[in-house]
Amino acid sequence: MAKGAGMIEPNMATMLSFWVTDADIPSEELQSMLKRVVDKSFNRLSIDTDTSTSDTVAIMANGLAGPVDLVAFEKALTEGAIDMAKQIVADGEGATKLIEVVVSEAIDEEQAKVMAKSVVNSPLVKTAVHGADANWGRVAMALGKTFDTRLNPEKVKISFGEHTVYEEGAPTGIEDEPVESYMKQADEVTISIQLGLGTAESTVWGCDLTEDYIKINALYRT
Amino acid sequence: MAKGAGMIEPNMATMLSFWVTDADIPSEELQSMLKRVVDKSFNRLSIDTDTSTSDTVAIMANGLAGPVDLVAFEKALTEGAIDMAKQIVADGEGATKLIEVVVSEAIDEEQAKVMAKSVVNSPLVKTAVHGADANWGRVAMALGKTFDTRLNPEKVKISFGEHTVYEEGAPTGIEDEPVESYMKQADEVTISIQLGLGTAESTVWGCDLTEDYIKINALYRT
Repeated sequence: MAKGAGMIEPNMATMLSFWVTDADIPSEELQSMLKRVVDKSFNRLSIDTDTSTSDTVAIMANGLAGPVDLVAFEKALTEGAIDMAKQIVADGEGATKLIEVVVSEAIDEEQAKVMAKSVVNSPLVKTAVHGADANWGRVAMALGKTFDTRLNPEKVKISFGEHTVYEEGAPTGIEDEPVESYMKQADEVTISIQLGLGTAESTVWGCDLTEDYIKINALYRT
Repeated sequence: MAKGAGMIEPNMATMLSFWVTDADIPSEELQSMLKRVVDKSFNRLSIDTDTSTSDTVAIMANGLAGPVDLVAFEKALTEGAIDMAKQIVADGEGATKLIEVVVSEAIDEEQAKVMAKSVVNSPLVKTAVHGADANWGRVAMALGKTFDTRLNPEKVKISFGEHTVYEEGAPTGIEDEPVESYMKQADEVTISIQLGLGTAESTVWGCDLTEDYIKINALYRT
């Protein structure tokens, strides 16, 4: 179960997620597993950068089914949590498109995550996606505003879906068709960024920024 | 002269500011003075959290007027720069209200600045101001999401204009009138936050987040 992105008192978007299993997993093991899973799923979504005071993910196991293969269990739990996280984002206030940002070829996972979050949280990237524009300039700006001097623009490659729009320090010139049809039709827009620096990777999820988000959050008293 | 918040290729909001004086001030002195001034003015404004690659502030002195009182000069330059920074914010894309966030009683200036920026950049605070709602819950959320554990909610005081809406760990109950008239009528909304921890202070400026911001940045190609 997961519930998110709605308006509750005192007007914050709150995320609640509860999991139950009949697997027999010791409490400590389950807790550390849940932390790893949350770090790969719920902690990688962002509706509007604002953080609720009451976000909660909890898991309960009654042990009825006996011991289980922990590796397989964690894999299934991760997949379920990512699926749930993406549903929360797609259901975000005013959202019309889910945005998946995949940063790869980073020096380490932290760098990949910081870059991916900067892109998915940029209001200019979010509005560009809303306007179905494969705007590589805004993606490059969002990478640049992290002030990570290890970035090399000549090595960065930016793609929307399967369409590479920027590589080797310059736009590829295919900004219009067919990437435009992709941007217009996709309910889930994937922005892939290869940094060309290493082998680490991180994926985060967000949504577009729309007039309905403003209506919901500015005009809720009228 | 200062120019900002417009759309230029590649679709970033770019800020340019050029200053000229006939005072005779050595180049090194003028440069370090400008850095101090910019840190108190232009570096404290935010339209939408996105950072342009080409923001520029420059000052040129031809020396014609001879030596000047440096303290008085810096004071005048700071006032001019703050005035210009506020004009840029008020002219931000889609903006209808300027937001001034003053954080005082902080442990140090860095803490005050981080808190103030978190509030002024929060989409939920920005939309609340657009909707003329003195929403202390969203301000408290923005303070909380800095994860600064030195904060003590019991000591925090939040005011909109002269109207204190939260203190001693609870809302004061005057959320409606007269603070509502203030929020509706003010072109410049001041949010004051006293942390109750020390004596440091910081002021930043931003603007509300409106449907016009979305229109300008999502539908620019249609």
